[in-house]
Order: sequence, then C-alpha cells, then structure tokens
Amino acid sequence: MAGTRPKVVETASQLRAAVRGFRGEGAKVALVPTMGALHAGHIALVRRAREIAGRSVVSIFVNPTQFGPTEDFSRYPRTFEADLDKLADVRADLVYAPAAADMYPQGFATRIEVGGPSQGLETDFRPHFFGGVATVVAKLFIHCMPDYALFGEKDYQQLKVVTRLSRDLDLGVQVVGMPTIREADGLALSSRNAYLSPEERATAPVIHHALNGAAEMIRAGGDPTIATAQASERIAAAGLRVDYVAARNAETLAPLAGADEPVRLLAAAWLGTTRLIDNIPV
Amino acid sequence: MAGTRPKVVETASQLRAAVRGFRGEGAKVALVPTMGALHAGHIALVRRAREIAGRSVVSIFVNPTQFGPTEDFSRYPRTFEADLDKLADVRADLVYAPAAADMYPQGFATRIEVGGPSQGLETDFRPHFFGGVATVVAKLFIHCMPDYALFGEKDYQQLKVVTRLSRDLDLGVQVVGMPTIREADGLALSSRNAYLSPEERATAPVIHHALNGAAEMIRAGGDPTIATAQASERIAAAGLRVDYVAARNAETLAPLAGADEPVRLLAAAWLGTTRLIDNIPV
Repeated sequence: MAGTRPKVVETASQLRAAVRGFRGEGAKVALVPTMGALHAGHIALVRRAREIAGRSVVSIFVNPTQFGPTEDFSRYPRTFEADLDKLADVRADLVYAPAAADMYPQGFATRIEVGGPSQGLETDFRPHFFGGVATVVAKLFIHCMPDYALFGEKDYQQLKVVTRLSRDLDLGVQVVGMPTIREADGLALSSRNAYLSPEERATAPVIHHALNGAAEMIRAGGDPTIATAQASERIAAAGLRVDYVAARNAETLAPLAGADEPVRLLAAAWLGTTRLIDNIPV
Repeated sequence: MAGTRPKVVETASQLRAAVRGFRGEGAKVALVPTMGALHAGHIALVRRAREIAGRSVVSIFVNPTQFGPTEDFSRYPRTFEADLDKLADVRADLVYAPAAADMYPQGFATRIEVGGPSQGLETDFRPHFFGGVATVVAKLFIHCMPDYALFGEKDYQQLKVVTRLSRDLDLGVQVVGMPTIREADGLALSSRNAYLSPEERATAPVIHHALNGAAEMIRAGGDPTIATAQASERIAAAGLRVDYVAARNAETLAPLAGADEPVRLLAAAWLGTTRLIDNIPV
C-alpha cells in the first residue's frame, strides 16, 4: 500500500533545517546515498535505515564526476517520480535531490582521493571513479551530518573506500554495509541491469555463478589464483569481456598475503555495452 | 599583563564539547589554525578572532603532511609553553593541540587536492604542500565547525586555496584573511625568520623592498613581466636564490590576462637554508 511521498528538498540549507528538526525530536538520522533508479537493493537500505535510526534521508543525485568521458552518465536511468513512489511505500522521511550546479558551482576545484582500499580493481579500469565518489559522498555527509550512512555491498570496494573516507576526515558518520540483493537466478540487483537485452539478461547470472564456483574451490583448499582464473574463463566463455576477477583481503582489499585472512571475491565484466560488477565472501 | 592560560584540549571530541559549550552561551566561534611558534602575526589573528566572534579557538599542530621529505619538519620551531603565554595575553579561549597519531591514525589514506588557486607559484616548488594543507585544514574545520577561520595574507596562496576548499566542501566556515604584519624594516613576520643568522636577517627585507619597487613600476604603467623580472634580479643580487617572483590575478591567482584586473605580486626565495615568502597588492 502506497504511503505519502517523502518531502523533497534541493538545497543543503533546506536539508540541514530538516535534519535539525529530526534531531530536535531526539531522532538519529541515517542517510542512504543513491543515484536514483531505485530497486529492491536500495529499498532494503532504506528499510534498514529506518530500523537503526529514527529518521531516514535518501539522497538522489546522478554524480557526473564519477563517470568517465566515455561512460554512461547521459544514459544513466533517471526515474525520479517512480523513485518517490517506492520511497513512499517504505515511508522514507526525506529526499535530498541537489542540483549539479549547487553541488559543483562555478570555480569548483576540490577533489578528495582515498588511497588504501581504492587501489586496483575498479581503479584499474575507472581511474576517475573513486575520486568522484569520495568527493560527492564527503559533500553529502557534510550537508546532512547523519549518524549513519548505508551502502550496499554490491559496490564492495566503494563501501570500503567510503568507510575509510568517513574515518579519515572524522565526519562522525558510521558507514553501514548491507548484503547484496539478488534476483532469483543470482544476478545482483543494479540500476544498470535495465540496459540488458532479454538475451543478455539471461546470460548475466554467469558472473555470480562463476564467483560461487571459485569460492567453493577456495573453501575446499584450492589456490585463489587458479580459482579466480577459472572463474574468469567461465565468464568469458559466456561471451562477456572480463575486466577482472580477483581474490582480495575482505577488509583492506589488499592482494592476499597468506593464510587465515578473510577473502572476498570481486569481479567486473562487460556484457555488450553494459558493465556489471559483483562480489561475494568466501 | 599576562592573563590566564587558555584551556588546552587534545582530541576532537573534547574540542567539540568545548565548542558546544561556547555555542550554548550564544557565542560565535572563530578558529585560528597555526603550527605554533606564534609571533605578532598570529596574535593579530587571535585579536581579530575575538572581535568578529565571541570565542576564539587556536589550533597548534605542526602538520607533517605539508612538509616535503627534504624540508624543515623536524627543525620547525616548537615553542608550546611560550605560545600559551602569548595566548594568555590576548585571552584566547581555547587551544586545540591534537596529536599526529590522532590526526593521521593507522591506515589513513585520504588526501584533498584543491586545483584552481593552487596551480603554479608554491606548487611548482612544493608540490606536496597544498594537498597537505587542504587535508589538515578540512579536518580542523570538521573537528571545530567554526563560524570563521582566520589566516594571514603572508601565505596568500594558502589563503585562496583554503577559501576555495571551504566553499567547495560547503564546510560553512567563512575564511577571513588578515594583512601581513611586518618588522620595522619591512620583513614579513614568519616563524621561519628564527632560522636566519644576523647577517641573513639584515638582508631578508630585500624581498619586500623588491616587491614594493615592482608594484610602483606597475602602478606607473610598467609591464608586470618586466617589473617582476627586475624584482627577481634585485633579490638575486642580494645573494638569495629566487624560486619565483610573479604577478597574478589577486582573486584567482591565474596569470594576468588583461588590464583592469586586481594584481598581487608574490615571491619566494632562499636565504641560505631558509625559504622566505612574501606578497603585496599592487
């Protein structure tokens, strides 16, 4: 049953006033940063936000600085009205939808780079990406000053980068990661799945299946390098162009250095003109 | 007459509690970020801080990340007890003296870069400098969340970089610049003047005199390129090694593009092992 659409604010000062109001009621505040095109993964974040904090703020901003010049910024799905209906259903308290001209005014010249967990993986293929993410997330945190911010584990490297960022700048925001939501056939939910043709959609779960196979091999004592190479071959055999399949330390995202460390498997591959990513714990 | 030494806090949470107390009294808060070794230039900033805001916070932190590997971090003057006495005289309300291990904990990986006004000048000779400054100033602003922050015009490019940073990250801090304080012979006050031998100290004002000469030439219609080249020659003739003498747009610090723009003259030069900087308006 649809509830009332959340109030939408477009400026940082309106946002701050609303957050002050929430705090005046004694509520904690959780922020769910999104680029819109909301799916069940986002909605799970909003539900969780309401559980851990009294009030939920959802930001919707398709951030131009995290797209490269040849990437899909212009065609990225924009479904603002449908997003508001979905947020009404889960009773989100507030939507923050800033304008790009307010986020990046004339003369804007600042960029935040996070080393550590940003090294390798996505950065090898999208070198601009985490600088853009870190800068906009820092701004969103500074605008909202929430107690919590929720991110999906589907973008696992991003979750680690944002966690590091919040700690390093002492933004006082506890970053919370939530498990990836998947379709019945294993495909991780993503706004970019909308780009897939029916044939591509049928093929796409191979990434998840290949990662699962690699995880089983490693749990059975197999060499992670061989396991990820085989997963990569399996994904390529289905017709995808693999950017990477990698086993990394699940906390630092550093290359594996020895036994007894938590392992995360991460992959990125192109299916036609759509780039898909996924990851699982071992 | 010496007043009471200001209270000293060493952690961001102690600082926030103290600032909350100031705000609870209805006071505005002004921050004066310093690396200690306080001189009359810093003290003028603190006096002004008390005028424009009810409460003044002085941070003292010799920031390692803005020094290059061959620079003077280890020998930078540290005069904490004398600094507190000077701050007692001007009735500063609070000193924030964080530990480096708290500012840059294990795994710290974030760096803030400001383009625009950081381009050229100091960056040509100290490429690490403004990244280090921007990162620590952002952290100090986030820790303190002051209404105002005061910086001396002696570090004019830094003033412009910090102003840009505060605006770009929407930190809500109004950055205020204050005119350079000089010795009677024109030498700009600097903590690094303590490095100068008596002979070097006698020579050092040549930078200011050369800049004054260039400003006069430009005001009389002279070509800024010729005027700054002559100033550079005059400084070199006194035995200094010149890093730069430049005429720039006083607001953007971009190279001069035409008539009718505000002009700032900026210089940096080595006197023995001491690097001095200065600047003046035209």
